[in-house]
Amino acid sequence: MSESTREHTHTARAFWSSLEARDWSGVERLLADEVVYEAPQTRERVRGRADYLRFNQEFPGEWHLRVERVVADDAGAATTVEALLDGEAMTAVTFFTFADDGRIATVTEFWPEPYPRPESRAHLSDLF
Amino acid sequence: MSESTREHTHTARAFWSSLEARDWSGVERLLADEVVYEAPQTRERVRGRADYLRFNQEFPGEWHLRVERVVADDAGAATTVEALLDGEAMTAVTFFTFADDGRIATVTEFWPEPYPRPESRAHLSDLF
Repeated sequence: MSESTREHTHTARAFWSSLEARDWSGVERLLADEVVYEAPQTRERVRGRADYLRFNQEFPGEWHLRVERVVADDAGAATTVEALLDGEAMTAVTFFTFADDGRIATVTEFWPEPYPRPESRAHLSDLF
Repeated sequence: MSESTREHTHTARAFWSSLEARDWSGVERLLADEVVYEAPQTRERVRGRADYLRFNQEFPGEWHLRVERVVADDAGAATTVEALLDGEAMTAVTFFTFADDGRIATVTEFWPEPYPRPESRAHLSDLF
């Protein structure tokens, strides 16, 4: 594992643990000045460290986060996080890219929701 | 980038290009005998190479796949794929793990769908 891979793994984990701890200065240190957050499902975009901090600080409701999975390489990282939002368990899937100094440059986040298995492929799988 | 990272990146890309080409023997070569596919949103699970090949071969509708993003490390890989399903553009987010011989051991796949930005956080973001 290369040095930058190790650093990206560490930064992605630190991001989530700092958020969970509401350690806002800890979160701030991990973010590039010009960080951009995007949620493709809602088309939300937040530009810049101050606004992205505020997005997290003022995010409505009670929330708790637990990292499930981290994949990282020289260019980026991907995580899945188990989120409890107002008591409802959801999964956040997040892709990070990093600036040359190792800080987070982009955050692209998905919140996939449960839906019924389509009848048309019911013969192809079991349910767990 | 380590040898296994390179191999995992290559295997994830080859998986998608072989599927898009309907190169079923090419897909088969990439899969561990005991590969397990899971879709947490629908709770679909498919066990074993033969059944997972069939899941893809008989997947209903017209579909086309284009890789957008690959992240890989010694343990796994994550991809986002732009999928056209019966003409509708969707994103597949997929996590892979690999057997010791480099073949795909697990596939965990999410299909996040668009939803409206909640009013409660409308003051925190722009829309793109």
